[in-house]
Amino acid sequence: MIVPSQGPEIVVMKFGGTSVAGPDQIKHAARRIVAAREKGKRVVAVLSARGKTTDELVAQAHEISDRPVAREMDMLLSTGERISCALCAMAIHDMGHEAISLTGSQAGIVTDSVHTKARIIDVRADRIRQALDQDRIVLVAGFQGVSTDSRDVTTLGRGGSDTTAVALAAALQAGVCEIYTDVAGVFTADPRLVPEARKLETVSFEEMLEMSASGAGVLQLRSVEYARNHGVQIHCRSSIEDGPGTLVISEEETMEQPFVTAVTHSNAEARVTLRGVRDEPGVAGRIFTALAGANVNVDVIIQNEPVGDDQLADLSFTVDRADLATARDVIEGLDGVSLEMRTDEAIGKVSIVGAGMRSHPGVAAKVFEVLGEERINIEMISTSPIKISCVIAADRVPDAVKSLHRAFELGPDAVRPEDPTGAEHRPTVAG
Amino acid sequence: MIVPSQGPEIVVMKFGGTSVAGPDQIKHAARRIVAAREKGKRVVAVLSARGKTTDELVAQAHEISDRPVAREMDMLLSTGERISCALCAMAIHDMGHEAISLTGSQAGIVTDSVHTKARIIDVRADRIRQALDQDRIVLVAGFQGVSTDSRDVTTLGRGGSDTTAVALAAALQAGVCEIYTDVAGVFTADPRLVPEARKLETVSFEEMLEMSASGAGVLQLRSVEYARNHGVQIHCRSSIEDGPGTLVISEEETMEQPFVTAVTHSNAEARVTLRGVRDEPGVAGRIFTALAGANVNVDVIIQNEPVGDDQLADLSFTVDRADLATARDVIEGLDGVSLEMRTDEAIGKVSIVGAGMRSHPGVAAKVFEVLGEERINIEMISTSPIKISCVIAADRVPDAVKSLHRAFELGPDAVRPEDPTGAEHRPTVAG
Repeated sequence: MIVPSQGPEIVVMKFGGTSVAGPDQIKHAARRIVAAREKGKRVVAVLSARGKTTDELVAQAHEISDRPVAREMDMLLSTGERISCALCAMAIHDMGHEAISLTGSQAGIVTDSVHTKARIIDVRADRIRQALDQDRIVLVAGFQGVSTDSRDVTTLGRGGSDTTAVALAAALQAGVCEIYTDVAGVFTADPRLVPEARKLETVSFEEMLEMSASGAGVLQLRSVEYARNHGVQIHCRSSIEDGPGTLVISEEETMEQPFVTAVTHSNAEARVTLRGVRDEPGVAGRIFTALAGANVNVDVIIQNEPVGDDQLADLSFTVDRADLATARDVIEGLDGVSLEMRTDEAIGKVSIVGAGMRSHPGVAAKVFEVLGEERINIEMISTSPIKISCVIAADRVPDAVKSLHRAFELGPDAVRPEDPTGAEHRPTVAG
Repeated sequence: MIVPSQGPEIVVMKFGGTSVAGPDQIKHAARRIVAAREKGKRVVAVLSARGKTTDELVAQAHEISDRPVAREMDMLLSTGERISCALCAMAIHDMGHEAISLTGSQAGIVTDSVHTKARIIDVRADRIRQALDQDRIVLVAGFQGVSTDSRDVTTLGRGGSDTTAVALAAALQAGVCEIYTDVAGVFTADPRLVPEARKLETVSFEEMLEMSASGAGVLQLRSVEYARNHGVQIHCRSSIEDGPGTLVISEEETMEQPFVTAVTHSNAEARVTLRGVRDEPGVAGRIFTALAGANVNVDVIIQNEPVGDDQLADLSFTVDRADLATARDVIEGLDGVSLEMRTDEAIGKVSIVGAGMRSHPGVAAKVFEVLGEERINIEMISTSPIKISCVIAADRVPDAVKSLHRAFELGPDAVRPEDPTGAEHRPTVAG
C-alpha cells in the first residue's frame, strides 16, 4: 500500500467515453469528481474522448486518405480527449470548484515515438502537483502523450486512457486509481452473454492481465501491467451507480483464490496459417521479429511437426483482427518463408482464468470435456499457469462461454472454498 | 520588400474555414500548397478550423455552461484548427510530399494570457525552420498560441488565423503572406450588396486597417496592423480560382490614391447610451478604462454638451454586439456614473475609406449629402483622416452602401485619376 508523500490523499479517477458522451454525462462525471474533492481528497481525473468522437475523427481521416500518416493520426485523435476535459472543467467551475484541463503533453506524459501505439516512458507530473497544491482539480486528457525525442503528440492505442490514469496514479503516489465505466466492475463472464454472471469483489493483477489479454474489455492490458509493476491499486467502478466495484490488487492481498475466477472471450481476432514453412532454425524467428517490428501482437501460436522429406511444417497464429492487413503485408514482404498463406477471420477465443489453477492440474481436462460435450471443436490451444485459451469457431463462442461458466459454477449459487456461506456471491450489479 | 535570409523563398499560405470545410476542399488546399512547393518555394500553411467546427464547439460548451471559463474555452476551441492541419498533412502525404502539422504552441506562437483574445508577443519559429530545412511542408494550427507565463493554450479571437499567418510571415521573413478565402480579393464594397463592386488590385495598410475596422470581413484587423508594423506584404486571394487577388502594401508602394477606395459596412455593432452622466473630470475615463479592462472594444463615441444646472451629459458609444452583455455588466458595476443606461442592437454602420481623402476635404460633405438624399438619418459620426463612419438604422445599411458606392463612382465604369483608360477596372472576379 502506497501512502501519499504529503498533503491529503490523491485519487485518480478515470472516466471512459460513454461516461462523458453527452452534456448530462459530463455534468454527472463532474459531480462525482467534485464529491471526491469535497470529501477532502486531491483529485486528478483522466477523461476519454466523448462517445463516438474518436470513431468520427477516424472517419474524417479516411475521407482524406486510405492510409493516413500515423503522426498526423495522433495529432487528429488527441483532440477528442481535450474536448472532454475542457467541457468537464467548465462544468466543475459552475459547481464552485477550480479546475484546469491539461493535454497529455502538459500533464507530462512522455512516451516513445511509436505513433498510434506509443508507450509511456516517463511521467513528469510537476505541473499537476503544482495545480493540486493550488487547490485545483486537475483534468488530464487521456490516451495521449508527447514523444521524448521529437516532441510530437502521440497516442497510446485504443483504451490508452486507462494507462494514462494508472501512470499518473503511480507518479503521484495516489491511494487508488478509480476506473469508471458503464459496468459495475469485473464480472465472472460478460453479463450480456451470461445473465447470471457475478461481479467479483477482488481480482489479482495476474488474473486481470490474463482476462484483459483474453478479451475482458473492462481494462486495457497495458494499464494492468503498469499497475502491477508500480503497485497501483485499481478500483473498477460504475459511473452510473454508487457502491463498490472490483478491486484489482496484488495476489497476496486477494481474499480468495478459486480454481477459476472468470470466463472471458474475444471475437476480435483473426488467424494466419502459413503452409509449407521450412523447418530451419531462425525461420519462425524471422517471421515473429518482423511482425513485432510492425507492432503486430501475436497471440496463440501453433507449429505442427514437420512432415515429409523436405521437412516443411505448418505454422498458425492469431493476431488482432485490426492488424490482419499489416500482418499479411509483413509476411508477403519476407522472402520464401512459406509456400502459402491463408487467413481466417471467422474465429473466436474463449478462455478461463484463475490464479488457483496453478495448484489444480485438472482444469484443462475439464475445459476440453465441457467443450466436447457441447460439440465445440477446439482449433488451437494456448495455456499459461493461470489461463487456458481455446480458439474455436466464432459462432460457437456464446455457447462455449455459457457452458464453461456453468460447469465451473461461477454464478451466484456457487459455493466457494473461502466462503462457505456463499453470502458474498449475490449479484451486486442491480443493488 | 523583405528578402529571406537563406535558402529558397518562404511563402506563408493561410486557408480559412470555408477553404477546408469538407474533404474535397482540404484536398484542394493541399494541391495548392503542393503546387507552391513544386515551384521551389518553402511553404508554411496556416489553417483555420473546418467550416462550422468552431460554432459546434461553442455550442458544446454552452450545453455545459452559460458562462464557460475562458481558459477552458481556449482549450476546447483550439482543437478545431489542429484537426484541419492533421487532415491536410495526410492529404499532402498522399501527394508524395512530406508535411508535418504543428499546434500553435509547437509552432512557437507565444501570447499573453488574455484567454479568448490573446495577443501574440513572440514567435519562436525554430521548430518550423528546422522542419523547412528538412524539406518538409509545415502546417500550423491558426488562431492559437501558448501563454508565456502559464504555458496554457490561448486563442487570438475570431479571425485570429490571419494574425497567425502574418506573424509567421514576419518571423520567417517570408516574401509574401497569402490569405486564401472564398472571395477573389478586397472589393470596393461587399459584392453581395453591390453587384458592380470592383476588386482592388492594391490597397494600402492604412486603408485596409480602416476597412477591417469598419466591417470588411476579408482580413482580421489585428493581422493588418501586425503586417504594417512588420512590413509583411499580404496577398488576399481566392482559394477556388487562380489569378491575382488584392495586394495589401505600404502606402508608398500603392499605384493609385483615389479619393475614396471602398465603402464598407457592419451590422455587428450595438449602441450603449448613458443618460445623465456627471460632467466631471475622470467619469468618462472610469467608464472606458473599465470597458478596456474587460476587453470590450469601443468604436464610435459621442458625448453631448452637458445641459441644465446639474451639468449632466449624455454619452453614447458603440461596441461589438457580442460584447454588449459584458459592457452592460461592466457599467452596472460602476457606482453612480449615470442615471440610466439604454442599449440598441438595431444599428448599423456604413463607412467610406480612402487614403486620398486626406487631401480632399469635401468628402464628408458629400457623404452627408448622399445619405440625406436617400433620407437616411445619421445617428452618430466618427472620422479619421482616411475614413468617415456613420451609424445609421440597421435596415437602411444596404441602401446607404449602394448609394455611396454609386455616388463615389467606385464601379467598373469609374474613371480614376491615375488611369485614364479605365482598362484596369474591369471586374476580375469572374475572369
